[in-house]
Amino acid sequence: MSVQNNKGLLLVLSGPAGSGKGTVVKQILDKYPEDFGLSVSATTRAPRPGEEHGVHYYFIDKPAFEERIEQGAMLEYAEYCGNYYGTPADYVQKKLEEGKNVILEIEVQGALKIKERLPDTLLVMITPPDFSTLEKRLRGRGTNTEEDIRNRLATSRWELSNLERYDYVVINEDGKAGDAADEIAAIVASEKKKTCRNKDFAKIFFEN
Amino acid sequence: MSVQNNKGLLLVLSGPAGSGKGTVVKQILDKYPEDFGLSVSATTRAPRPGEEHGVHYYFIDKPAFEERIEQGAMLEYAEYCGNYYGTPADYVQKKLEEGKNVILEIEVQGALKIKERLPDTLLVMITPPDFSTLEKRLRGRGTNTEEDIRNRLATSRWELSNLERYDYVVINEDGKAGDAADEIAAIVASEKKKTCRNKDFAKIFFEN
Repeated sequence: MSVQNNKGLLLVLSGPAGSGKGTVVKQILDKYPEDFGLSVSATTRAPRPGEEHGVHYYFIDKPAFEERIEQGAMLEYAEYCGNYYGTPADYVQKKLEEGKNVILEIEVQGALKIKERLPDTLLVMITPPDFSTLEKRLRGRGTNTEEDIRNRLATSRWELSNLERYDYVVINEDGKAGDAADEIAAIVASEKKKTCRNKDFAKIFFEN
Repeated sequence: MSVQNNKGLLLVLSGPAGSGKGTVVKQILDKYPEDFGLSVSATTRAPRPGEEHGVHYYFIDKPAFEERIEQGAMLEYAEYCGNYYGTPADYVQKKLEEGKNVILEIEVQGALKIKERLPDTLLVMITPPDFSTLEKRLRGRGTNTEEDIRNRLATSRWELSNLERYDYVVINEDGKAGDAADEIAAIVASEKKKTCRNKDFAKIFFEN
């Protein structure tokens, strides 16, 4: 038995559009495949071409989704364009018990709901280095209308106004998503060395 | 101005005799000379051959030491064999403001006193992987009497009974002090990304 707590941690990542959080998540999974797994969401929307059940989403129908909500089997869920999207609790718990850290990429409201239900969860906000970089990234995509960009910038203000309810903030500099991934992996590893996560440390120490 | 908080952190390291904390501290200073500095203690005892004022200790006389105690200019102090030993607050503050993390290697009671006075301080306990390794290390030195060893093992029980008042616990495996040093550096870097240490983040973010 290991003296140190090696249980998996649930890691919720949020960040404004333009923070590059998707790339950071990909980097974490690429660089630390043994330590991290991605949570798979459930949805009632139809699969798109190429999407696989259990990989991209769990595709379930509306009555099944609603039954799970009633059973408390969804860590959080939201309705969007007439379809449900949610995080099945059983999948996450199973991974955590296997010692894997589970990553959930989710917006602020869902993140706060999960923290309320599972206070052990780590909430990490990913941001660009500053507002002008955020704006540059959104404009640089070339696919957003001016109205889209303004909406997203306004949303980023709201998102960052919730920063104090997050545990950590990690900056994703241009072209350095790998560094941000390393920083997040270091945060998770450090959290596991917290004494409050190792309440049996002394007991196990003296037994060995 | 940096969006992220780069102020130095005061890092207090403790650990049972046999934890190898001295070696870990040396490794931190060797591997991260830009980021970490060692706190220099003040003492009223006479310098030993080779000891330099301001490097190994600040050598001051008893009235000067007592005046500093009265002024609250010692972060903590203790009397040992008729001499005072203590941590001058001004030196630590100066280093922290320069952005350096300051390491203080100190026993449990002193560590808790400092945390009380400066709650921002990080308390890290360094331990061997288990009790049998601790015992093996103490016996392996060959310079301790059986009574010494028993005393030290008993003290280790008391020290680890205070673990929950520390923030982190780091295991120093045989021959891996460099790894423990890396882990402690990662803990400090992660702490600086905590939102509670970055209360002005959003404000600075939107100004830039």
